[in-house]
Amino acid sequence: MGIDPMTVIGLSAVEVRDRMASGALTAVDYMKACLDRIARLDGEIKAFEWYDAEFAMRQAEGADAHRKSGRPLGPLHGVPVALKDIIDTRGIPTANGTVIDAGRVPERDAVIVGKLRAAGAVIIGKTVTAELAFLHPGKTRNPVNPAHTPGGSSSGSAAAVAAGMVPLAVGTQTGGSVIRPASFCGVTGFLPTAGSIPRTGILTQSPTLDRVGVFARTVEDAAMLAEVLYGHDELDKATAPAPHPRLHSIASSDAPVRPQFVFIRTPYWHKASPACQMAMEELADHLGEGCFETGLPDAFAEAAAMRERINLAEMAKCFHRYSRDGADKLSPQLSEALDRGGKALAHDYIAALDWPDYLYAALDAIFQRCDAIITPAAPGAAPPGLESTGDSVFNAIWTLCGTPAITLPLFADEDGMPMGVQIVGRRGGDARLLRTARWLAKHFETDGQGD
Amino acid sequence: MGIDPMTVIGLSAVEVRDRMASGALTAVDYMKACLDRIARLDGEIKAFEWYDAEFAMRQAEGADAHRKSGRPLGPLHGVPVALKDIIDTRGIPTANGTVIDAGRVPERDAVIVGKLRAAGAVIIGKTVTAELAFLHPGKTRNPVNPAHTPGGSSSGSAAAVAAGMVPLAVGTQTGGSVIRPASFCGVTGFLPTAGSIPRTGILTQSPTLDRVGVFARTVEDAAMLAEVLYGHDELDKATAPAPHPRLHSIASSDAPVRPQFVFIRTPYWHKASPACQMAMEELADHLGEGCFETGLPDAFAEAAAMRERINLAEMAKCFHRYSRDGADKLSPQLSEALDRGGKALAHDYIAALDWPDYLYAALDAIFQRCDAIITPAAPGAAPPGLESTGDSVFNAIWTLCGTPAITLPLFADEDGMPMGVQIVGRRGGDARLLRTARWLAKHFETDGQGD
Repeated sequence: MGIDPMTVIGLSAVEVRDRMASGALTAVDYMKACLDRIARLDGEIKAFEWYDAEFAMRQAEGADAHRKSGRPLGPLHGVPVALKDIIDTRGIPTANGTVIDAGRVPERDAVIVGKLRAAGAVIIGKTVTAELAFLHPGKTRNPVNPAHTPGGSSSGSAAAVAAGMVPLAVGTQTGGSVIRPASFCGVTGFLPTAGSIPRTGILTQSPTLDRVGVFARTVEDAAMLAEVLYGHDELDKATAPAPHPRLHSIASSDAPVRPQFVFIRTPYWHKASPACQMAMEELADHLGEGCFETGLPDAFAEAAAMRERINLAEMAKCFHRYSRDGADKLSPQLSEALDRGGKALAHDYIAALDWPDYLYAALDAIFQRCDAIITPAAPGAAPPGLESTGDSVFNAIWTLCGTPAITLPLFADEDGMPMGVQIVGRRGGDARLLRTARWLAKHFETDGQGD
Repeated sequence: MGIDPMTVIGLSAVEVRDRMASGALTAVDYMKACLDRIARLDGEIKAFEWYDAEFAMRQAEGADAHRKSGRPLGPLHGVPVALKDIIDTRGIPTANGTVIDAGRVPERDAVIVGKLRAAGAVIIGKTVTAELAFLHPGKTRNPVNPAHTPGGSSSGSAAAVAAGMVPLAVGTQTGGSVIRPASFCGVTGFLPTAGSIPRTGILTQSPTLDRVGVFARTVEDAAMLAEVLYGHDELDKATAPAPHPRLHSIASSDAPVRPQFVFIRTPYWHKASPACQMAMEELADHLGEGCFETGLPDAFAEAAAMRERINLAEMAKCFHRYSRDGADKLSPQLSEALDRGGKALAHDYIAALDWPDYLYAALDAIFQRCDAIITPAAPGAAPPGLESTGDSVFNAIWTLCGTPAITLPLFADEDGMPMGVQIVGRRGGDARLLRTARWLAKHFETDGQGD
């Protein structure tokens, strides 16, 4: 109704939220702009596994009616959010990226869906996931160049935000499934400290490693969405009662002093592309005294293997139903991984569980001397082709250690494909990490080095 | 000094503590009585792995000097406590029941030893444990009849209390290592809810199952000792910050109404001796309306196998050092178990970890209708011979589920060997369980049915 769709699509989620709260923008108008964009782009990008324009519009109308009634507004009032299709949604299909669950409609919302609804968010639809949130790709293409993978397993969530179809999306990470696709698609991806966000009602692949993360176009947007999702859940033993963090207000505030960064190449540096290596080195140089480089103890070379050992053993247990009832419907990639996980020995698995705290002790010493670590988000830009979602080796250490991480789309390779910088904070230091990341993002804008 | 040793040996630990606090009994005189008893009996019983009369007397003298100085007294001031020889004690040998650790002298006290010292307790010595707190027996004999096993693995702790060598002792249980030896030796054994007592500095056999428990001659004595040991420990993730329970005062208070018991035979009833079966049935009958019988869902028949699966897999990981460096010095029994545990598959192990909460849901429903469960503490009295410490099958369900349990020496078989009644409470209901157990113990005294 007189609103230019392209203008509102360019707004940040915080701006959208604020305009809706002030009455300058209706949820219906904004939703129309998003749906228009999906209709025009998603035929090629295929970010959505399921969406229904009417279903989305009804929620937007409800949000506008709620506002007009004068009742208090939630922190995401009227803002559309897309959900990875392993997050249970009552009455809406949730197919977990496998034909085995095709047509499955959960009877209950995941805990975080209840939190989103309570915050006033509008669930716009479900985004494509790799098969059972593991490695076998879904149908999504990279919005920056559709011949390239968007990364995975939260492929559709990253692509939908990158393509401007939705300002916010939720995904999960067990290996590198938030940070990697965010880096590949050129958006901000934020993974909170392990245990921050309840996972009840979300497909369980590896209870030790699975984490909920968010996709957005700015650090503040990511903070605003994540803050709504944090909380204790008795059914998710990784979560604990704790004061609710003020992520958004702290992320939006200025750091008291210029942040100190540490540049860590990790033992996997040789796997990084020349463009990635050069970008990281230039960033470290550019930060000058605000960044020093440090190595990691040799034991960190085992992090990827230990993470994988935990992942595969727990997946073999958690996906028992799929391997029992639908073995012939699983990808060879997943079947092989389930086979390997099924053969893992208990004592090796139990020994691997000691590694997160063992490694984190060394990281904790590093965090005594800095605000955050900078390190690649992925080995480079999204590789061409859709057969693989890419390598998560640069996420292994941080996923295993349970540290919060965020990727910012600060670089591009020679073909214009985005490359993220991963910023890692100490466990529980999520708000401070977001504030530090926002400093870096702003610093880059000011210096004109960003894309 | 004019004190009749036999008179003070007959006192409860609470009475000893109170007399010392009032000045009616000195720590030195009481220690002399204990040491005299050890000197006379331990040549045959062999409850102690290590003790040193001078070391014990020095502590007792220190306790008396402390008292004379007028400084405040701890809740165990001057009271001797014996410790299972897998509990690290600074400067005192801790050999873990294996020649591999012979002569090992820890540099630090276990967390609970610090708590005992802070409470004013006197560490009288280290008691015999089965090999690495598993099944292969140590040298201890049953004080009631030295031709019988004292049970295990906390053999010496149970025997030392039963023989009147010490009023209080600490042990651990992974299968049935507190409840079974207490039942066999005719003393009170109390195992708190899992996660109540920190285990840092104690040999780890199975982090999921290992628990600290106490031995005493009365319920109040057990409560007084256990209360000192409860607490949160950052290094023991099973513990959590919680208000300190007032075990001793609640255990000593009268129940507001007559307790309601449930008699559970368990799926292992056919393994109970005729004497044990008859005693339990008579007890249930005798309690009349104060006791009803209920069965357990079929799944409980798997409890012993699931408990063993967790125990063996975790033991294979935790005892890696022993199997690597001292395989030839391990008993065939332990070697075979380590071999089995080493072959356990990770996904089977992870699946077994779901069982405690799964089974406890059914117990929780039962606890809605009663104060406590009564069930055998062991399949019967201590079997003759010293080759085996007996069968822990009647402890499997409760150990696996993490419920608090206490055994009271209410029965004896035709040969006069003690048989305990195991009383099980709901998770976290330790103080109430102790109060209920004390009611039962008093009720029996009054009725003259006790031994």
